Amino acid sequence: MDSINIRKLAEELNLSVSTISKAFRNSYDINAATKERILEKARELNYQPNPLASSLRTQKSRTIAVVVPEIANTFFSLAINGIESVAGEKEFHVLIYLTHEDYARELGFIRHLQNGRVDGVLISVSGGDADYEHLDQLRAKGIPVVFFDRVYYNSNTTKVTTNNFESSLMATRHLIRQGCKKIAHLYHSSSLSITKERKEGYLEALRQAKMPVREELMVECDSDQAKSLQLIRKMLKKQGPDGVFSSFEKLAVLCYQACAAQGIKIPGDLKILTFSNLESAALMDPPLTTITQPAYEIGRQAASVLFKALEKKSAVIANEHIIVPSVLVERKSTKK
Amino acid sequence: MDSINIRKLAEELNLSVSTISKAFRNSYDINAATKERILEKARELNYQPNPLASSLRTQKSRTIAVVVPEIANTFFSLAINGIESVAGEKEFHVLIYLTHEDYARELGFIRHLQNGRVDGVLISVSGGDADYEHLDQLRAKGIPVVFFDRVYYNSNTTKVTTNNFESSLMATRHLIRQGCKKIAHLYHSSSLSITKERKEGYLEALRQAKMPVREELMVECDSDQAKSLQLIRKMLKKQGPDGVFSSFEKLAVLCYQACAAQGIKIPGDLKILTFSNLESAALMDPPLTTITQPAYEIGRQAASVLFKALEKKSAVIANEHIIVPSVLVERKSTKK
Repeated sequence: MDSINIRKLAEELNLSVSTISKAFRNSYDINAATKERILEKARELNYQPNPLASSLRTQKSRTIAVVVPEIANTFFSLAINGIESVAGEKEFHVLIYLTHEDYARELGFIRHLQNGRVDGVLISVSGGDADYEHLDQLRAKGIPVVFFDRVYYNSNTTKVTTNNFESSLMATRHLIRQGCKKIAHLYHSSSLSITKERKEGYLEALRQAKMPVREELMVECDSDQAKSLQLIRKMLKKQGPDGVFSSFEKLAVLCYQACAAQGIKIPGDLKILTFSNLESAALMDPPLTTITQPAYEIGRQAASVLFKALEKKSAVIANEHIIVPSVLVERKSTKK
Repeated sequence: MDSINIRKLAEELNLSVSTISKAFRNSYDINAATKERILEKARELNYQPNPLASSLRTQKSRTIAVVVPEIANTFFSLAINGIESVAGEKEFHVLIYLTHEDYARELGFIRHLQNGRVDGVLISVSGGDADYEHLDQLRAKGIPVVFFDRVYYNSNTTKVTTNNFESSLMATRHLIRQGCKKIAHLYHSSSLSITKERKEGYLEALRQAKMPVREELMVECDSDQAKSLQLIRKMLKKQGPDGVFSSFEKLAVLCYQACAAQGIKIPGDLKILTFSNLESAALMDPPLTTITQPAYEIGRQAASVLFKALEKKSAVIANEHIIVPSVLVERKSTKK
């Protein structure tokens, strides 16, 4: 069969090209039965409208981009499921871009997206608050942006996060209540909003309990896992803490490995608590106490705000901060 | 500043539009210093070539699509990292599409991709071997397709998988060697290539050991986790198996939960072994014996085959099956 185009399809159906076009643009200005007849024939002939051409005309790709640091992380896979649940209702495609926490990759993606490949962007950012001009430029080109989880606070749009400071305060207080006197803190990517807020929560809990703040107990880990494991092992050996508050689930897993290797008993010698959405946390040895984020809900909320802007055909989004609180799930790793 | 276009950029630089265009197409037919000067000026003026327009002209999006059932699964997040490592070297974008194991979504995505939004597709499929015409149509339109992990064997292109049959045979034999007499099998999505191959491996091991095949020990689970947990609990209670071979990591996690609830001791009462790339498998209580797939390597191999085709500008890919074997990692959950 010859390749089919919109003209041939119109001929086959004895309709005008503009009527066919309306059916594919999902226009309201077309009879439902006619539309069904057109789509049926299109399926039969395996005709697909050219979205690149029509995107140029209508600037509508029916696609949103989700830019995230990684997916090998339970939080992001759940958040993406939440985003997809909203996008699915709106019949939009979701494209996922991975930055691997590389600010240069984020810049490259966002520059690339300036050309209308997508209608809107949900992003969990890779850098600190210093430079978010690339995202403001995107919005200036009419593409709305909503932040979730890791955000640039100074950018004028909606941010959806959990209550990082309060959850970390609650987590550290829990360790203190369980008898810990020397609490270490594991984190990485110190320029990120969430890293700073979680550290602040930890420090505030120490201050309130009149416990000393010791730099040597705060370990900035690396994107390289083996290197991080070395840093954690060294700190455990040298400082001998009795509690660990970890900002990221992977660091808690490394801490478990370090304890196993060094014969440190959890929770007897050391109590561990981490931000995590790991499903198997409850099955670990011992079961791991977690600050569990409402990841799915954070994704849903961020997507809802974005779609409201898309429906209004506006790239201007309220400069708001929506906070969905996390939950402390006590398990054996912090037992007295 | 007025919005900048290619003509204005050419004027600013006192160069021809076609020279500017060459710089952005990364053509070899342009002096390196000139190219650098153009890109520098473009950055300064925040000019970006319009990829939709140029895609229409050149049919080159410098983008590949990765279509996967889910990302809340360690295998896929590692495989995507492998794919991205190759795409990054080639300076291609990677777009991720999630089907949630829904064949209708797969059909929708693939139809959508027929229009040249991407240059090539890597897919881990959602359906059985019945109907893969949508993918053949994609290839007929000049867009090469490579399968990985979950494949349509009858489609004429390269498939990259692990040795599902042999690994499952090895896994079940391991359980038999550890003394299991009554081995259950957990799986889902029975029409998938990998589900069938893993089941065959299990059945072959029973046959070789002259052990009876019992339908009531083979549990087809559901996409709904609560439902799957119920099915597993019912089987454990009614059949009292002494071994479980699980095809999917999530089902083994559910089996651990069921054992905890029913007071079944692992490995004393029941030995468990699963396909899994879960990093925390070694930290579970007890540490979980796994068939670990070379997920990253599978992603890399599949991407390498695709990029070879893209470089030859051909959608025809050899009808080959590349097999990257899995490894049995013995841990306490299958100890004698």
